[in-house]
Amino acid sequence: MGMKPTPQELIKHEQALGLLNYGMYIVSSHAQDKKNGQIINVASQVTAEPMQVVICLNKQNLTHDYITQSGVFGLSILEQSTPFKVIGTWGFKSGRDVDKFKEAGHREGKTGVPLLIDHTLATLECEVVSCCDANTHSLFLGRVVGGEVLREGVALTYDYYRHVIKGKASKNAPTFRTQGH
Amino acid sequence: MGMKPTPQELIKHEQALGLLNYGMYIVSSHAQDKKNGQIINVASQVTAEPMQVVICLNKQNLTHDYITQSGVFGLSILEQSTPFKVIGTWGFKSGRDVDKFKEAGHREGKTGVPLLIDHTLATLECEVVSCCDANTHSLFLGRVVGGEVLREGVALTYDYYRHVIKGKASKNAPTFRTQGH
Repeated sequence: MGMKPTPQELIKHEQALGLLNYGMYIVSSHAQDKKNGQIINVASQVTAEPMQVVICLNKQNLTHDYITQSGVFGLSILEQSTPFKVIGTWGFKSGRDVDKFKEAGHREGKTGVPLLIDHTLATLECEVVSCCDANTHSLFLGRVVGGEVLREGVALTYDYYRHVIKGKASKNAPTFRTQGH
Repeated sequence: MGMKPTPQELIKHEQALGLLNYGMYIVSSHAQDKKNGQIINVASQVTAEPMQVVICLNKQNLTHDYITQSGVFGLSILEQSTPFKVIGTWGFKSGRDVDKFKEAGHREGKTGVPLLIDHTLATLECEVVSCCDANTHSLFLGRVVGGEVLREGVALTYDYYRHVIKGKASKNAPTFRTQGH
């Protein structure tokens, strides 16, 4: 155990990792009277009974703080036609600097979380069941307590974002390319 | 906390969950002189430094046992053209009944795990860092210690499998539809 990859191996690992598939979502939460959200690409159903979802968030991000404080999070599944500008706001700006929900269509879910509804095919709400440490990031396991489809459409994928919209990963993303590949 | 969804709400939750995006992968592992693997749809990079991956597996599955015993797992990222028959073998048959690797092109990775190379765009190898309990399933967090791209191509997505190949989820899949939606 504990084999340390060489720089050449790290490049190969990153290239292989680049073929994993993801969606593109807004994860949101709140604390006291403040609300925030951000783009994530890791959100997966992990069990059917009960319905549970796992998400992955950088510990430095404000939404991570809010989820830790409130114990709840919302998810908005973005549509393929989501404008690049919207992805820029939710993916590359911090809620410490701007109020991302200020001019975005949203509503409050049954758990109190803000849910983005602009450019959104479906929303989900989860109560945090557990949190797994993953070094720079946390994995939050959440039990689904709310959810509905808002409109028909094709969901935005990370592959579409990278190869059609030509977007990049933020430095706090799980998929940030340290080797540049 | 602890809101219990009504049957009508469960249907809506399942419909919303159905819009999350996944890839399709073979996860593999070994124990003593035995090897096994199975289809999974939850495999995501969660951190860049170090490169780590999370996977989700049903506790009843043989590959879950082997990963727990060996502390390592392999991943093969399937290509879009993977035949339905291959998905059937790796997704719906148990390694307790059949030797899935017997007639499948594979090689042994540096960690000792068997790696499917047929229909595979890239392989990864991980050492288990931690295991998070998720009721019927476990989340294994693994550190990437091997990986390479084998060929050019388009990766198979769960969406393509369900809507183009018209495939279903096995009863042990994280995305099994308890409400039929």
